[in-house]
Amino acid sequence: MEYRIEKDTIGEVKVPSDKLWGAQTERSRNNFKIGAPASMPLEVVYGFAYLKKAAAFTNCDLGVLSTEKRDLIGAVCDEILAGKHDNQFPLVIWQTGSGTQSNMNCNEVIAHRAHQLAGKVIGEGEKTILPNDDVNKSQSSNDTFPTGMHIAAYKKIVETTIPGVTQLRNTLDAKAKAFADVVKIGRTHLMDATPLTLGQEFSGYVAQLDFGLKALHNTLTHLSQLALGGTAVGTGLNTPTGYDVLVAKYIAEFTGLPFVTAENKFEALAAHDALVETHGALKQLAVSLNKIANDIRLMASGPRSGIGEIIIPANEPGSSIMPGKVNPTQCEAITMVCAQVMGNDVAVTIGGTQGHYELNVFKPMMAANVLESAQLIGDACASFDINCAQGIEPNHTRIEELLNNSLMLVTALNTKIGYYKAAEIANTAHQNGTTLRHEAVQLGYVTEEEYDQWVVPADMTGSMK
Amino acid sequence: MEYRIEKDTIGEVKVPSDKLWGAQTERSRNNFKIGAPASMPLEVVYGFAYLKKAAAFTNCDLGVLSTEKRDLIGAVCDEILAGKHDNQFPLVIWQTGSGTQSNMNCNEVIAHRAHQLAGKVIGEGEKTILPNDDVNKSQSSNDTFPTGMHIAAYKKIVETTIPGVTQLRNTLDAKAKAFADVVKIGRTHLMDATPLTLGQEFSGYVAQLDFGLKALHNTLTHLSQLALGGTAVGTGLNTPTGYDVLVAKYIAEFTGLPFVTAENKFEALAAHDALVETHGALKQLAVSLNKIANDIRLMASGPRSGIGEIIIPANEPGSSIMPGKVNPTQCEAITMVCAQVMGNDVAVTIGGTQGHYELNVFKPMMAANVLESAQLIGDACASFDINCAQGIEPNHTRIEELLNNSLMLVTALNTKIGYYKAAEIANTAHQNGTTLRHEAVQLGYVTEEEYDQWVVPADMTGSMK
Amino acid sequence: MEYRIEKDTIGEVKVPSDKLWGAQTERSRNNFKIGAPASMPLEVVYGFAYLKKAAAFTNCDLGVLSTEKRDLIGAVCDEILAGKHDNQFPLVIWQTGSGTQSNMNCNEVIAHRAHQLAGKVIGEGEKTILPNDDVNKSQSSNDTFPTGMHIAAYKKIVETTIPGVTQLRNTLDAKAKAFADVVKIGRTHLMDATPLTLGQEFSGYVAQLDFGLKALHNTLTHLSQLALGGTAVGTGLNTPTGYDVLVAKYIAEFTGLPFVTAENKFEALAAHDALVETHGALKQLAVSLNKIANDIRLMASGPRSGIGEIIIPANEPGSSIMPGKVNPTQCEAITMVCAQVMGNDVAVTIGGTQGHYELNVFKPMMAANVLESAQLIGDACASFDINCAQGIEPNHTRIEELLNNSLMLVTALNTKIGYYKAAEIANTAHQNGTTLRHEAVQLGYVTEEEYDQWVVPADMTGSMK
Amino acid sequence: MEYRIEKDTIGEVKVPSDKLWGAQTERSRNNFKIGAPASMPLEVVYGFAYLKKAAAFTNCDLGVLSTEKRDLIGAVCDEILAGKHDNQFPLVIWQTGSGTQSNMNCNEVIAHRAHQLAGKVIGEGEKTILPNDDVNKSQSSNDTFPTGMHIAAYKKIVETTIPGVTQLRNTLDAKAKAFADVVKIGRTHLMDATPLTLGQEFSGYVAQLDFGLKALHNTLTHLSQLALGGTAVGTGLNTPTGYDVLVAKYIAEFTGLPFVTAENKFEALAAHDALVETHGALKQLAVSLNKIANDIRLMASGPRSGIGEIIIPANEPGSSIMPGKVNPTQCEAITMVCAQVMGNDVAVTIGGTQGHYELNVFKPMMAANVLESAQLIGDACASFDINCAQGIEPNHTRIEELLNNSLMLVTALNTKIGYYKAAEIANTAHQNGTTLRHEAVQLGYVTEEEYDQWVVPADMTGSMK
Repeated sequence: MEYRIEKDTIGEVKVPSDKLWGAQTERSRNNFKIGAPASMPLEVVYGFAYLKKAAAFTNCDLGVLSTEKRDLIGAVCDEILAGKHDNQFPLVIWQTGSGTQSNMNCNEVIAHRAHQLAGKVIGEGEKTILPNDDVNKSQSSNDTFPTGMHIAAYKKIVETTIPGVTQLRNTLDAKAKAFADVVKIGRTHLMDATPLTLGQEFSGYVAQLDFGLKALHNTLTHLSQLALGGTAVGTGLNTPTGYDVLVAKYIAEFTGLPFVTAENKFEALAAHDALVETHGALKQLAVSLNKIANDIRLMASGPRSGIGEIIIPANEPGSSIMPGKVNPTQCEAITMVCAQVMGNDVAVTIGGTQGHYELNVFKPMMAANVLESAQLIGDACASFDINCAQGIEPNHTRIEELLNNSLMLVTALNTKIGYYKAAEIANTAHQNGTTLRHEAVQLGYVTEEEYDQWVVPADMTGSMK
Repeated sequence: MEYRIEKDTIGEVKVPSDKLWGAQTERSRNNFKIGAPASMPLEVVYGFAYLKKAAAFTNCDLGVLSTEKRDLIGAVCDEILAGKHDNQFPLVIWQTGSGTQSNMNCNEVIAHRAHQLAGKVIGEGEKTILPNDDVNKSQSSNDTFPTGMHIAAYKKIVETTIPGVTQLRNTLDAKAKAFADVVKIGRTHLMDATPLTLGQEFSGYVAQLDFGLKALHNTLTHLSQLALGGTAVGTGLNTPTGYDVLVAKYIAEFTGLPFVTAENKFEALAAHDALVETHGALKQLAVSLNKIANDIRLMASGPRSGIGEIIIPANEPGSSIMPGKVNPTQCEAITMVCAQVMGNDVAVTIGGTQGHYELNVFKPMMAANVLESAQLIGDACASFDINCAQGIEPNHTRIEELLNNSLMLVTALNTKIGYYKAAEIANTAHQNGTTLRHEAVQLGYVTEEEYDQWVVPADMTGSMK
Repeated sequence: MEYRIEKDTIGEVKVPSDKLWGAQTERSRNNFKIGAPASMPLEVVYGFAYLKKAAAFTNCDLGVLSTEKRDLIGAVCDEILAGKHDNQFPLVIWQTGSGTQSNMNCNEVIAHRAHQLAGKVIGEGEKTILPNDDVNKSQSSNDTFPTGMHIAAYKKIVETTIPGVTQLRNTLDAKAKAFADVVKIGRTHLMDATPLTLGQEFSGYVAQLDFGLKALHNTLTHLSQLALGGTAVGTGLNTPTGYDVLVAKYIAEFTGLPFVTAENKFEALAAHDALVETHGALKQLAVSLNKIANDIRLMASGPRSGIGEIIIPANEPGSSIMPGKVNPTQCEAITMVCAQVMGNDVAVTIGGTQGHYELNVFKPMMAANVLESAQLIGDACASFDINCAQGIEPNHTRIEELLNNSLMLVTALNTKIGYYKAAEIANTAHQNGTTLRHEAVQLGYVTEEEYDQWVVPADMTGSMK
Repeated sequence: MEYRIEKDTIGEVKVPSDKLWGAQTERSRNNFKIGAPASMPLEVVYGFAYLKKAAAFTNCDLGVLSTEKRDLIGAVCDEILAGKHDNQFPLVIWQTGSGTQSNMNCNEVIAHRAHQLAGKVIGEGEKTILPNDDVNKSQSSNDTFPTGMHIAAYKKIVETTIPGVTQLRNTLDAKAKAFADVVKIGRTHLMDATPLTLGQEFSGYVAQLDFGLKALHNTLTHLSQLALGGTAVGTGLNTPTGYDVLVAKYIAEFTGLPFVTAENKFEALAAHDALVETHGALKQLAVSLNKIANDIRLMASGPRSGIGEIIIPANEPGSSIMPGKVNPTQCEAITMVCAQVMGNDVAVTIGGTQGHYELNVFKPMMAANVLESAQLIGDACASFDINCAQGIEPNHTRIEELLNNSLMLVTALNTKIGYYKAAEIANTAHQNGTTLRHEAVQLGYVTEEEYDQWVVPADMTGSMK
């Protein structure tokens, strides 16, 4: 491989000639060989591209950067956002906890590429754009990285998580309506209980996701606040007056999302409670999804020796050894995602506690976990929707069979003959392996006519309608 | 000990004669000898007292319970809420996961005590009030327990958590204002950085708690929704028309809190995402408090060989072996609380995922953890406020000494001479053990006058004001 | 209430006259009003009683404490261990993180009680025993608290956890043997799979618990190492030569447990990885127990509309509204315990990470969580054993019905006719609602005789015997 | 792109012509678009390669597979292990929870590649090797996936984790010895305490890592047990006699690691407590490393306004805005890793609890987390060692300055004049801002000669040597 010599305040470094990055990126590559290369999420890099462009425009507006430099920086940022330089960001999550080196990676790539756009060759001629003094003007890693991660997380949530969850929510809602008249046995403690409709069951899932989406929306206010303008420690040292508000406005314009400058820059650098808050809502969604997916696989269990109340799509051969087997694989994928999100929540939580003084240095780890969870939940919901939820159908025969067997229909008699006599009927039928109706009449508590009038499963589901 | 014989649908049980509870409570005591006795939080019992009274009033209004019975039930509930029967609730958290036995404990105690209030002796005469048919009328464990736990959690949060956090928040805010002019060295990565004021530092803490309080408030909407009226599986079987709305209104009236009936009763029984959501906000507060308390003990470290920028109250001798030692004990207590709350969050999360079909059977465990976390955060904040935060004072001498030593004041020169030359000054001063001013002039980058004009710590903190 | 005046190095404090504690205990009560009073586990107090007695004997042997003082201190420790002073330890978990005040609580109670035993009145006459100079001789909170918590945790594990788990393990093992010939359908992905015996299923549970017990045993080596002798920072300042080894020997003698002095006292004060390690094993047991209890409630689900392969004891009426309902309540109690233990694990983990320099100050919280988890697992296993596991019986009729329905018996044909043809048989039977035998013959892949010879459920379970 | 038609028991699928995989892999790609493609760790694929080869050899030895087929399968497995087919495994973690599709991916790639090695063209001619009947012979996904993940995890731990941790441990041990005579102030509660040597401090870190390594080693026994031979549900259906023991022996031979067949195959399929156990030890190491790295950055804080007792290497410019800044970036990287590992532990724990009946279907998620944690800890330790630990040097001037200031040297007087008088000396010196020596003499408790003889920092560190 061919190299060129790059320099920073510590000294010289050899950098592969075909790369746009500079000395500090190269140092970081060598100093942090931890896990897979380039693990820093590209979404964070794109967040940087938005903010570097916005900073250039703001600096220009406020008279501290020339129009030429602004336009060059902006042009490179647009190229980055178009995905043209994805392979120029080789750094890992497990670097300096402020993400300084990813900030410098962006600064270096933008400066070098701007040099090229200006018609020059990297390493030759006077530098067109300086990474620290121009690209990073009015900025610090300490305010750019949290800004980049807020942009990345917000975008991911509105572009992937919310659409994915909403898509699934809408399918479940349609199913709730379609199954409104399918009366089935209820189950509490996994044991037979009084009846409800399959539609009512699904309406509970819809309510869970609605609450989860609302909780997630609630967290976006905090996430919309950007640290940019705080620079090194939150005081905004070396920024022109009005910079913080204006740069957030540019970011809002470029992303089309309602970003604003943070109310308190000290909080925005030293704590990342916004990520903790947002991930908390992602975790809540994971909790809900786990319940839903688990119910669905229990109801679909069988085909012959399980519950078997619903039929789910058979998407693939289920077993390499058992011929003809079909499994609830989408339930499995999404519940694995849920477990991961619950684990990620602890990582984000721990990271959130560990700020010291003016800076939290768990930024890349926290950002990566929020992005992963947001992606996985969105994707898993979409996959679950398309490959499972949409195809769910009731197994009417089985549902009726299980409903009519149930001893818990006796509950309808509570208000007629009291809890104790009703219990006696159920216990007797259970011991004798007979029907409720038989024992109810036999014990002399009701007549056959009364029984048939009072114990009507469909009526027992109606009160909440 | 003397016993009387009680009966339930399974058979006879011996119950201590001096106790108001009945057969099912006694069975539970014997069947669940897990951990300390009576671990079920009294707050849940009180929540039951509110709802049992509200149910009696509603049942009476809707014509299914007599006025006499309503008044007897109501009178016992008032006694319970006055703390007169605290020792009648011996059950543990680790019982049936629906809390059925704690519901029955309430039903039994209320029925027996009502019998006494009606002038009779327990075990003699016709039963005045029946536990299942009267006290539990229009109810099931499955909707009462979640209602009781929502009442308990909501009350705890508005009566203990929010006041405690707010009290600390207000003290920190007063300190932020009082310390507005105390210029000190900033620290990022635990390393010397550009200056800020001590007031700015504290303003970040205030912002954290404000965000946390807002997040906690956001969760109260979900928590205000009550399951009552769903009965066994959410359908509201055996409830009179209008029951759910009215019973929530009575609960709101009796508690003075804005409770409403749950939008979806199936969700309200089968999932406890409301608790997951609320505990998520408690966890966020724990994250914030951990950061704040940790900073304070770092800043107070010393007295002679640490940072020593602030002085905190000496509340007790710090060591059984080292004479004269004083420790940041309130920081330690509150950070231990934070760790516990973060652990509890995982317990609540796991419990939340594990509902099956129509019922989540991790209710007592989830309720106990939410209550514990809410109590501990409220108490710890109040304790920290009174015994530490209120007494925090700057150590001005030390603050100035550390500020003036700092090499990071050189950052003020970035916009004058550029990042690279500024770095050269700092590095040279670091290597030579000299001052920035000396090396800045020596290297010929600034004159003494320029240095004194440009490098003014107080000016470096001003931009965000 | 009447008070007496007590003094410490900070000044005077009013203490209730009827209490044996002194100034520092009283300060702590007032300064840490966090959560329920007296939450510091008594087990830790008893751990202190063992070590205070051992220290007195060691100090006496090594010539730095008189025989009289040794005997007085020892006598009080024996009283404490006999439970005579349980109400003299009012402090909470959420105090100073070194547990200094609980150490002083012990020192004060022992000194005052010794004064009484010497025939004097508290507050009168020359002090017979001094809390710091005599009771705490050759000690610091920093080495006594970790010693006390190791003693407490070790005892709890060998006296409660291991016996409880072992008791359940033995019952499950007996069931595995008793059910060795009960052939039933297997289930993978919750779907019908090839058969196995109920005994084989239970043997898996036994194996889980055996691995868990082994893992727990592995952690006892670390836990058996005692910090005592390290004093303030691990150097053993102010201890006589040979003290650390001898004091551990006395503790081993008094407790009957194999305690030894810690290899490295700096680790023993500054880190509590031993607790992290031990709790990790408790968490592993929770994972296993959760799987086992969950399986059992799934298999017991019904009675008519679930799986219903086993019958579990009906210990209590299951519902306040549904007459005759019986629920898997022991499964619910133990899985709630499992969730709590998994949450506690995170609290212990976080506490473990947060030592600074020579001291970890999350000691009381870590100790309390380990003790709670150890108690809950032991108790829950014993309760589950007595009230559920011992009574488990197969429902033979149901087991056979489900077994014979299964399409997965076709797997026995793989080695005869290949996976693809076997799949065709299963799929056809599934679509037509017919039997495997019918379709196998119909498709011409086997004769009736071959089918009956090759597809024998009991034979399909035999290979591992 | 060009496609060919592949078939499985469900029907036809279009597969890219240049790929070796078949129908089921392609289905999985389409059905599980969750997160980044190809996220299933290659280590698991290599684990499969070992076991597929071992199965072929065993099947051949036991007479159920021809020598030709054995050799073809073995040859492809060797190619896979040589990294020649890395791009043939496009599946994700978030698939079926048994990893069935990754098993089939291996089966399909091996079958197709074997066809090529036999000189044929994929899709033409009779199939040389069948994926289910030959490659998967005597196997099921249910026993191959856990076998593959045990192989992968075991290898990762012995090849990456243990060497990385050991390398760091050895450096810290060398430092402990090199710093044996550097007397410094101790700190407890972050406050000044009695002295110790820097070597003693480091010896505590070494002890932590030694305990952690031992704990990790303890888990390898469980991890060395392989599920292979259990097939679908643990009974070993469709395996020849002796298969399980022999196949484990081949795997041990091919990997050079001490694998054996699992004692209980039902446990080995239905539970993955071995992974829970191993990850528990990884988490314990994370706890230890977090403490160590945190201490080091605290001790290195400054350079002028922090603690500054040690100097760590300056590997990169620390700030994009503050010139000359150097940060403890390796501490930050490794503590982020620790937080991730603690989060992963919760994901693994939750996955471990959720087996149902004969199968745990959280396998890929659990495996991926164990592998990630094992890799990150190993890598981070190596990185921390090379880029930080090896370069740690004491700042002797600063250490002495802080030591001599300390008021806690007064503890040396406890045994001479008692705790109370010693406290009076320390408090007076603290209030007056004077030295201990001055006040000790002034108060008349000791002479100057006595003070100088009794208060010798180096002597105060000596007892544990």
